[in-house]
Amino acid sequence: MTNFEFKNPTKIIFGKDTIKKIIEEIPSDAKILMLYGGGSIKKNGVYDQVKAALKNADLVEFGGIPANPEYAVLMDALKIIKEEKITYLLAVGGGSVIDGTKFLSAAAVYEGDEPWDFVKKREPIKKGMPFGTVLTLPATGSEMNSGTVISRKETQEKLAFGGPALFPQFSVLDPQVITSIPERQLVNGITDAFTHVLEQYMTYPAGGFLQDRFAEGILQTLIEIAPRVIKDPSDYEAAANFMWSCTMALNGLIQQGVPGDWAVHMMGHELTAMYGIDHARTLAVVAPSHYKYNFEAKKEKLAQYGERVWNITEGNVDDKAYAAIERTEAFFKELGIDTKLSDYTSDYEGTAEKIAQRFTDRGWKGLGERQALTPQDAEKIVKMAY
Amino acid sequence: MTNFEFKNPTKIIFGKDTIKKIIEEIPSDAKILMLYGGGSIKKNGVYDQVKAALKNADLVEFGGIPANPEYAVLMDALKIIKEEKITYLLAVGGGSVIDGTKFLSAAAVYEGDEPWDFVKKREPIKKGMPFGTVLTLPATGSEMNSGTVISRKETQEKLAFGGPALFPQFSVLDPQVITSIPERQLVNGITDAFTHVLEQYMTYPAGGFLQDRFAEGILQTLIEIAPRVIKDPSDYEAAANFMWSCTMALNGLIQQGVPGDWAVHMMGHELTAMYGIDHARTLAVVAPSHYKYNFEAKKEKLAQYGERVWNITEGNVDDKAYAAIERTEAFFKELGIDTKLSDYTSDYEGTAEKIAQRFTDRGWKGLGERQALTPQDAEKIVKMAY
Repeated sequence: MTNFEFKNPTKIIFGKDTIKKIIEEIPSDAKILMLYGGGSIKKNGVYDQVKAALKNADLVEFGGIPANPEYAVLMDALKIIKEEKITYLLAVGGGSVIDGTKFLSAAAVYEGDEPWDFVKKREPIKKGMPFGTVLTLPATGSEMNSGTVISRKETQEKLAFGGPALFPQFSVLDPQVITSIPERQLVNGITDAFTHVLEQYMTYPAGGFLQDRFAEGILQTLIEIAPRVIKDPSDYEAAANFMWSCTMALNGLIQQGVPGDWAVHMMGHELTAMYGIDHARTLAVVAPSHYKYNFEAKKEKLAQYGERVWNITEGNVDDKAYAAIERTEAFFKELGIDTKLSDYTSDYEGTAEKIAQRFTDRGWKGLGERQALTPQDAEKIVKMAY
Repeated sequence: MTNFEFKNPTKIIFGKDTIKKIIEEIPSDAKILMLYGGGSIKKNGVYDQVKAALKNADLVEFGGIPANPEYAVLMDALKIIKEEKITYLLAVGGGSVIDGTKFLSAAAVYEGDEPWDFVKKREPIKKGMPFGTVLTLPATGSEMNSGTVISRKETQEKLAFGGPALFPQFSVLDPQVITSIPERQLVNGITDAFTHVLEQYMTYPAGGFLQDRFAEGILQTLIEIAPRVIKDPSDYEAAANFMWSCTMALNGLIQQGVPGDWAVHMMGHELTAMYGIDHARTLAVVAPSHYKYNFEAKKEKLAQYGERVWNITEGNVDDKAYAAIERTEAFFKELGIDTKLSDYTSDYEGTAEKIAQRFTDRGWKGLGERQALTPQDAEKIVKMAY
């Protein structure tokens, strides 16, 4: 186990009918900008609940933040923040709205002219406008971490950054919101959270026995609740465990003291940037090839995962490890998630080379838990995923 | 899963040679009172490391806080806090020193005359002097929670209280401190953490699937590292997992959204107050009898625990549940922990009645996860533990 520092100050308000509590969390003299996405919150009742809770607050709204929160759209929101002298941000949505709000938290107090500069620099963000969230789509864990991913159409880029200032002050998690989420987004959420855990777990044995157990526990819970959530999103018990698992999958806890991979995300982000494929689906495309390509480096953990999570008991380490990859791909398929790039686009020739070139251009030499994967390795992995 | 609110703002600084980092965490203009116990920190090098880190700080010391931190001793420390105009407290020790420091944090800003009043009231503590900790003995989890237990010889009382103001601002966890801990305290720590998890887990199925997995993960890790830590406390990998497991066992996380029992602790505290038996050992005395007495109410979770943690696969739910209790008692004994009151004192007659009378006098009518255990039930459980 390596040394680590861990602090997560976000207050989680979890459970039925908890949206009304936001008024207790926001300073009474705040001028609030409420941010949301495409308008689903107006259909599922969340918008009305937020408005009712804040009926006596000084509130401005900004809707229309798209999936893969787009820089140009966020710059419009930033203008409103400045013009209206906003002092508090409230994200009402899924990971995209929350990620966009995190960007705005940093941008609102940024002293330079061009916020894209701090996105590209990827230095830890230490100052931000305070913000809270009302989560409407479990998946990314953004509601309890300090990271964000922003897209920019102009340059076909999708970049991650973060810092201690970007933890939400509070996040409201009411599992009842899951009732109205379309199946496509539910299975995306399960896949996203599942892969978040794999990125922090599927590396090499690093002596984080407790971290391994926690990671396996989240995976087991996601496997257990997945069919129930898909069959009946109003199954509160399943929804609550789904929601809490997604949060715990990426709130920093299971990453402490152990190596992280994250190469699957790096390659997946490019597929979203190039083809607009749903984030979670790009992960399901890249992960199986990634694990097969890096089989020797990862087989001990793959076998442990196979044994503990999938009850794979037959064969030696190699057999169990290989079976674990196959079982993972089968799990994604059972969710209705395609696992090959060619399932999403017929125009995939040259994708691998293009991604390798982008990594080279950005100077990304060593991806993965040992910083050993080159752009050429990424090229081969993406080709295996065609 | 029930509704919950969870916020844990303590910063954990974990790993080798991290004690030196405390200087970065304490305000530079602070007047610090460093609190410690019987002086073991002067033998194991921790005292010197703390002093070196704070060599330029304005520092006063108070040593001699005993196991089961004693009110009268803490009142002496409170005098120093007032006389020396202390502004920051630094606990250097195990759970007793940290718990004592939490009492002092609250007492330092308390406006009444008699601090015992707020201990007895058990209202949430909302104001306190800021404090940090350097943990020297993994066991209680006090380094990352807001609870404390204080003893008072004068009245033979041992009472728990807490509140949002009583989270440490930071806690330094260097697993190297375990090297010099006597075996008696190591096995106490393992038993204490193990029972903390059981108190939050061994109730009834409550739909907290993820919480169950995390609880089981801590138990599995403690079982895995126990023989290694006892055999060689300088085994860093085992020590690190031991330390992190103890913290995670009682930092609030696994308790969210699920029922807690805590009756074992309530009865155990009385045995410590009456006979001075080590806290952890009182838990090992009470727990098996408690689970046998409440077998019908707890058997589903006992069986799940037996299956998942101890790989007990034979028999029906009742068989597995009973075997799980036996296996737990055997685990304590393997650690060298006696599990009957008569192993600790020959003067045990009347203990059960006395405890029942105390619970009655305090108006404690319903203990346990269903608040269904009466003082008469406690009497029977303690008798079973003779």
